Amino acid sequence: MAKKQALTVTFIGGLGEVGKNMMVFGCGEDMLIVDAGITFPRDEDPGVDIILPDFSFLHENRDRLRGLVITHGHEDHLGAVPYLLKEVRLPVYGTSLALGLLEDKLREQGVKLPRGSRTVTPGEKFRAACFEVETFRVNHSIADTVGLAIDSPAGLVVHSGDFKFDQTPVDGKVTDLGRLAGYAERGVLALLSDSTNAERPGYTPSERTVGRALDEICRHAQGRVLVTTFASNVHRIQQVLWAAGKADRKVAVVGRSIERTVEVASRLGYLEVPDGLMVEVEQANRLPAAGVVLMTTGSQGEPLSALSRMASGDHRRAEVRQGDTVVIAATPVPGNERLVARTVDQLFRRGAEVVYEAHRGVHVSGHGSREELKLMINLVRPKFFVPIHGAYRHLVRHAELACELGIPERNVQVAENGAVLEFTGDRVREAGRVPAENVMVDGLGVGDVGGVVIRDRLQLAQEGVVVVFLVLDRKTGTLAAGPDIISRGFVYMRESEELIGEARQKVAELLARLDGRDWAAVKGAVREGLGRFLFERTGRRPVLLPVILEVGDGQ
Amino acid sequence: MAKKQALTVTFIGGLGEVGKNMMVFGCGEDMLIVDAGITFPRDEDPGVDIILPDFSFLHENRDRLRGLVITHGHEDHLGAVPYLLKEVRLPVYGTSLALGLLEDKLREQGVKLPRGSRTVTPGEKFRAACFEVETFRVNHSIADTVGLAIDSPAGLVVHSGDFKFDQTPVDGKVTDLGRLAGYAERGVLALLSDSTNAERPGYTPSERTVGRALDEICRHAQGRVLVTTFASNVHRIQQVLWAAGKADRKVAVVGRSIERTVEVASRLGYLEVPDGLMVEVEQANRLPAAGVVLMTTGSQGEPLSALSRMASGDHRRAEVRQGDTVVIAATPVPGNERLVARTVDQLFRRGAEVVYEAHRGVHVSGHGSREELKLMINLVRPKFFVPIHGAYRHLVRHAELACELGIPERNVQVAENGAVLEFTGDRVREAGRVPAENVMVDGLGVGDVGGVVIRDRLQLAQEGVVVVFLVLDRKTGTLAAGPDIISRGFVYMRESEELIGEARQKVAELLARLDGRDWAAVKGAVREGLGRFLFERTGRRPVLLPVILEVGDGQ
Repeated sequence: MAKKQALTVTFIGGLGEVGKNMMVFGCGEDMLIVDAGITFPRDEDPGVDIILPDFSFLHENRDRLRGLVITHGHEDHLGAVPYLLKEVRLPVYGTSLALGLLEDKLREQGVKLPRGSRTVTPGEKFRAACFEVETFRVNHSIADTVGLAIDSPAGLVVHSGDFKFDQTPVDGKVTDLGRLAGYAERGVLALLSDSTNAERPGYTPSERTVGRALDEICRHAQGRVLVTTFASNVHRIQQVLWAAGKADRKVAVVGRSIERTVEVASRLGYLEVPDGLMVEVEQANRLPAAGVVLMTTGSQGEPLSALSRMASGDHRRAEVRQGDTVVIAATPVPGNERLVARTVDQLFRRGAEVVYEAHRGVHVSGHGSREELKLMINLVRPKFFVPIHGAYRHLVRHAELACELGIPERNVQVAENGAVLEFTGDRVREAGRVPAENVMVDGLGVGDVGGVVIRDRLQLAQEGVVVVFLVLDRKTGTLAAGPDIISRGFVYMRESEELIGEARQKVAELLARLDGRDWAAVKGAVREGLGRFLFERTGRRPVLLPVILEVGDGQ
Repeated sequence: MAKKQALTVTFIGGLGEVGKNMMVFGCGEDMLIVDAGITFPRDEDPGVDIILPDFSFLHENRDRLRGLVITHGHEDHLGAVPYLLKEVRLPVYGTSLALGLLEDKLREQGVKLPRGSRTVTPGEKFRAACFEVETFRVNHSIADTVGLAIDSPAGLVVHSGDFKFDQTPVDGKVTDLGRLAGYAERGVLALLSDSTNAERPGYTPSERTVGRALDEICRHAQGRVLVTTFASNVHRIQQVLWAAGKADRKVAVVGRSIERTVEVASRLGYLEVPDGLMVEVEQANRLPAAGVVLMTTGSQGEPLSALSRMASGDHRRAEVRQGDTVVIAATPVPGNERLVARTVDQLFRRGAEVVYEAHRGVHVSGHGSREELKLMINLVRPKFFVPIHGAYRHLVRHAELACELGIPERNVQVAENGAVLEFTGDRVREAGRVPAENVMVDGLGVGDVGGVVIRDRLQLAQEGVVVVFLVLDRKTGTLAAGPDIISRGFVYMRESEELIGEARQKVAELLARLDGRDWAAVKGAVREGLGRFLFERTGRRPVLLPVILEVGDGQ
């Protein structure tokens, strides 16, 4: 069966980096967006709140966009949707929990779901122009996660979603292996698969193993048990509830995001909460310690999270006490290792026992390790393979793995954000590039914090700022007031009077040699001359802000 | 045998944190300092170059200080010595390599080793007033590391040094287990032991396992092999040289600290360099790829290190090429995970194969895991136990381990920096506290960057700075020029003209309501009023610097 059309896949986010997943499938005049996520910023972006994917390509092709499908409810897959929907309108498809969480966010931002949007049950199909999309359930660290089998005149492409193969899932819903094998029977043009754990040999343990560890802890701990985990992991929360119930402990929840998850998930039927099990924190505080489990936010050591504040005694409603057992049922997201370590130290100082090490079995990943990645490829038997959802090294390791399984190297493509891949029946190639910058959101403004501002902030952070102000006579260009110098973050002004005095002198000398009416020259000379002086004296390079005001007739 | 005197151990650095180790043993009128190290700063201390321990206690007791002994050549054990020797003079004792590395630093800072200082061979004793100190060799990630058996009228105390038990050490020098057992025979009052890996079950693999992995890689790699490791790990470098020799590869070194280590270590006899093995980089660049090993700095992903610059094409003398195999023979120091990951991604992008994952066997720790920590305690059989050299959680885990082995809980003491522990025959107790702050060194100034300056820098980094300047008439207090506003790191000035215009207006309004001659009031009002305005409009809180200059008669 000859396929006459080419399929393009345009990667805007999520490849070669961790976060802000977004890709666009194109066939003929139709485009389908898969996911629109955000990233939380890194240390090098001080003052930036979130990072969005670049919508330029979408704007250019707004007349071809037929739909947006969300594969699951994590921020790096749906966090950008409210921002996107303010700029383009198109039907949104997603599972019940994903759309439930999305609608919360849309409400916060005053955005409505566009007409034609709908919930899809895993296993259900929907059509978006020339694309017929079948969703299939996969196991992940949030319930209601799907992969996609996207059929079009170009062929059948399988997008794995974020997945692992959990053979004993908490909700009993094993991945439909037969369905995946069925795609292979039809002939799969390409598989795009989750590379997050492509470095890890073996298998990722089942979520149920955490349940067993929690059972042990809840049974044997003499005092209270506090559990912190990712708020979105409903199956983990379910196992906490079960373990508490078995050990005759009541459960209270501390922290907005976990409270919200419990509410949304139980309302939508994803969480089974036995009657009478859950109590308010204030009530739990009055129960015997051996009869209490507290579930809190703060698995990443975030300074403002419930657990962090409880560890430092700053939380209004609860505190960590001597004799508590605190379970960190999570692993630090790369970059957060120090924050989590600091929280663990704090908890120990308060006399708690802390269960946090990897070998304690209180956390498993939501992404498959190498053997599961091989299983996915062998089930689906694609012609072409593209590793997705990972940092560059993860993509490379996943590509190597695909070759190990026999997929010819020329049919395996490692791409990065901005790449446009084109699949014809015979080959895959990089057919172009599109803009795929990081769009920073800082406070209330979208996009107005770019490279220059961040560089300034970094230098300010490293070296401080020195402001030099000069009041110049408009007519003569001579000094009418100043030079005066203040600084922040450079030296203690009070203890550095001598240095500041010399700096002032230096500036006056520089000025005496110039025509004060040439402001640009004055600023340049001050920046250079004073900058050199300060570096020689202190070894530091503060940001220098020369400031000139004019006074005189006609002012 | 009744011990009449008490022993005090004062912890100034290294307990409850990782870095800047320093402790002081006291008996009667005599004090002995063990180690004086530095810490490299964390993200939260922007602009700070290194962190020193607090010398206050040493100043207060300068007449009692009898000696300083360095247990090995790592920065967190000797980096503060040059600074210390500028303030107090006392004999310094250390092994050949440690003192060799120290003398390099002293030379840089123009400091001489005090009279009475000397090299000690592992196993050798020395006396410092009432202390008789016997050194014993231990295995670690730098050669010539010792532990200490410190005898005094108060009893025999064993300080483990930084150690592991490597049963097949590269230099053939196994720890003298009999000697340690001998201390137990004499009766050990207290053991102070290295807690770094107290979280890790099992044993730390021998350094030789890395050699085997390097052999494999050097034999099978088709192109060049690049190896990066901690420059101070002489045994690791030795194994690189051996592996290269076996695989008929020449070795070139790139990077100042590794070049220096190879020079010092071979001169002092710690590194055996076969004739003709090592070549200059330029020469290596002309050899066939399969005949080359490059050793470089950059195992921590440091942006200015050789490997980082080679990965981005910025290094003058060498670059990473397609077909290279790059071995990261190190693990990221906590906090550096992102930097290392970024370097790995860069190397993959350049077409190198990168060997970096933990399971690849190219790095082992220099610190013992739990089974080795138990072995140390069981060999030495101390009465009291104090975990040292670790973050708080490490100290707690190590204390738990000691209790598991039968040391009564009341004889196990977890302390933190600033604690003074007192040991009598019968008990250990915390007998007081001393100053143990972090002393920050920034550029050329020691100690003048404190809490306030760093907070300013953090806020500057997060939010930027806005300078508001007003020129006021001396007599009337009214505005003679301005208000004018400039900013750095806040918004793009060019694109925010409207906002800046409104801000200027706001300031003028605020001023109109005040007496301009009351500068404090003016500054306060501007900071508050403008701060509130900017936050409402942008959600950000930049540092506000109101600046007032006066003009008028008599100026």
